[in-house]
Amino acid sequence: MDERLKIIFSRRSIRKYTDRTLSETDITSLLEAGMAAPSASNQKPWHFVTVADKQKLKALADAHRYGKMLPGAALAIAVCGDPSISSWWVQDCTAATENILIAAAGLGLGAVWLGCHGDPEREQAIREILGIPERVGVLSLLSIGHPAEEKEARTQYDPARVHVDAW
Amino acid sequence: MDERLKIIFSRRSIRKYTDRTLSETDITSLLEAGMAAPSASNQKPWHFVTVADKQKLKALADAHRYGKMLPGAALAIAVCGDPSISSWWVQDCTAATENILIAAAGLGLGAVWLGCHGDPEREQAIREILGIPERVGVLSLLSIGHPAEEKEARTQYDPARVHVDAW
Repeated sequence: MDERLKIIFSRRSIRKYTDRTLSETDITSLLEAGMAAPSASNQKPWHFVTVADKQKLKALADAHRYGKMLPGAALAIAVCGDPSISSWWVQDCTAATENILIAAAGLGLGAVWLGCHGDPEREQAIREILGIPERVGVLSLLSIGHPAEEKEARTQYDPARVHVDAW
Repeated sequence: MDERLKIIFSRRSIRKYTDRTLSETDITSLLEAGMAAPSASNQKPWHFVTVADKQKLKALADAHRYGKMLPGAALAIAVCGDPSISSWWVQDCTAATENILIAAAGLGLGAVWLGCHGDPEREQAIREILGIPERVGVLSLLSIGHPAEEKEARTQYDPARVHVDAW
């Protein structure tokens, strides 16, 4: 693994957090990273809902099958996309999601991606909890905090998935 | 912008390249970064077709409306996903795509994302050029080389897109 890419390899799914809150500076850095993502024709169809309110984190945990770590998180971010801005919003918001996760690793935070768009019932439940308009898609929910577990940097490189000049 | 996140902010769309080829080490690093992406339930539905062959790069340029830089690229990577492995393949392969683009920036290379999945005709044309099976989706085509243009690191942070605790 090339040392210059360490931030990429050190992004792991972190589900245990300390009680420390996130600084405003860190929250802004995460959002700056999200909005540094590429988007089709630079249309930037994304919106971000940040959630630190414990009652809302609990409601989100109840709404998401894999979200039981959320009440212990310092922050959740719902990455949303407006299809009226771009038909490519799913890919654009996924790139923004991945940027935020890599940024969390770079800031020494821990985070995990909870999939939403692709499961309409889950997406609708989150929309209702956060007051997100009907027209807007909820791509992902990110659970973020100061890590209380450690995982090693890794790639899962598999040469069987590489095809040279043709499949 | 936090210096620790520089690799994220320095990822820009680079469409002009020198004649230098990519080292095998750099190609492997790009693919290691792609396969370090998260995927739903860690199903890793991705496949990567690397293309350095000039005839194929020309054919890809003809098949993609925004691909005219491809014949000047040292390498293209088609990021593909197998829906029979995971129904979340679009998001997983988009995360892998973004990882490769960030890795290119980290290695001092330049790259640009050419959208494919979302335009069925374009996707099919690329499938045929690269011998990709019918069942497999082509999420993106990445054009990569040693940069012959410079762009400043940036975020496109917009506070109007941030909502605190509710939309």
